Amino acid sequence: MRALFHYPLLPGCRQVRMAFGEKKLKVREVVIDPWEPDADFLALAVEGEPPVLRDVTEAGPVTIVGVRALCEYADEASTRNKLIPGDRIARAEVRRLCDWFDNRFDIEVNALILAEKIETAHVGQTPDTQTLREGRTHLREHMDYMSWLLDRRDGLAGPEFSLADIAGAAAFSCLDYVDEIPWRDFPDVKSWYQRIKSRPSMRPILSDRVPGLRPPLHYSDLDF
Amino acid sequence: MRALFHYPLLPGCRQVRMAFGEKKLKVREVVIDPWEPDADFLALAVEGEPPVLRDVTEAGPVTIVGVRALCEYADEASTRNKLIPGDRIARAEVRRLCDWFDNRFDIEVNALILAEKIETAHVGQTPDTQTLREGRTHLREHMDYMSWLLDRRDGLAGPEFSLADIAGAAAFSCLDYVDEIPWRDFPDVKSWYQRIKSRPSMRPILSDRVPGLRPPLHYSDLDF
Repeated sequence: MRALFHYPLLPGCRQVRMAFGEKKLKVREVVIDPWEPDADFLALAVEGEPPVLRDVTEAGPVTIVGVRALCEYADEASTRNKLIPGDRIARAEVRRLCDWFDNRFDIEVNALILAEKIETAHVGQTPDTQTLREGRTHLREHMDYMSWLLDRRDGLAGPEFSLADIAGAAAFSCLDYVDEIPWRDFPDVKSWYQRIKSRPSMRPILSDRVPGLRPPLHYSDLDF
Repeated sequence: MRALFHYPLLPGCRQVRMAFGEKKLKVREVVIDPWEPDADFLALAVEGEPPVLRDVTEAGPVTIVGVRALCEYADEASTRNKLIPGDRIARAEVRRLCDWFDNRFDIEVNALILAEKIETAHVGQTPDTQTLREGRTHLREHMDYMSWLLDRRDGLAGPEFSLADIAGAAAFSCLDYVDEIPWRDFPDVKSWYQRIKSRPSMRPILSDRVPGLRPPLHYSDLDF
């Protein structure tokens, strides 16, 4: 059976898990220690970073590496439940927003809030207040932009659910795990996330628990 | 006619220009000042960063933003000259390597050599020796890895020319413009780049000239 090597609080890993879930592709999830990946894992992927998939194909076992490669790989597995739907213009908008979450949002928000909280918890230190504050300011700007998009569309990239929603939900679910989303101030983003939260592909993510970091009570609550 | 807003020495912009060239999609190239993008450009793209395409479609004008979105958009325009060829496993390998150049290579090499040289030239300062040295060490490690790949394959991602070769050549052509590639020590990478350099899609790139930064003589020479 195919195995996906991942770390629960990495947004990119969550994207891939959701993409495989949405496509109904069964996968065995293997949690990697990002601080000390074991030798077997490093032998699989020169990158040394999850997500990495070990798939079993007619041609033998193959290793697929990286968030974007894996999401497209999942989507190309079948034509049902398209994750990049629509014509090529619509598909470009999906990919633009994936890129947005993978890069801009990752640098401006995830690196300052999520990584800061996870890494300091890992070594038993306190997160830096100034770093968190800067990340929170950026997060509000991003949520303003998302509200603007969601005022015009049902999904982030267009009328249909897509990889852009997955990319967004993956990041937001990680930030929600560390209780950093100002839900009350952004009702449009909250109701978008509520809709995604109830999808079966989110279930394994909502039951993730990381040692030393306990999520808030509302984290797994579909009706938060 | 479609217009592509770009900056000549950004590897991501060069990827898109080459992708459009390979697909024989005509495009008017508009150079953007990355330090002071004008208001018209900012109105087009909230990201404020090239590459951005303004395309004319049956449904009216559309704006497409971002390297990966634009490269896939170009490839989806027609089935000839496939830039992401092969089955889904082969396609995943192409996308893995694009990701490699867009992220790892960009952080470890482009940011330390290319950005350092361009930005210091822009303000009339001298590049920081330590930063350059660190970037050069990384570059050699990446070229070792590329030599390893090219020892097994004709193209970076497989037997056929692909977006992975475009992503690599885009970065290498920028670094070559600032004369930072140790060609002599990596004959496999050199002969790979020579093959790509002779493709018609590279012609506009080889005639790029940026004020205040003159490329070495071999930059445009196909037989360097």
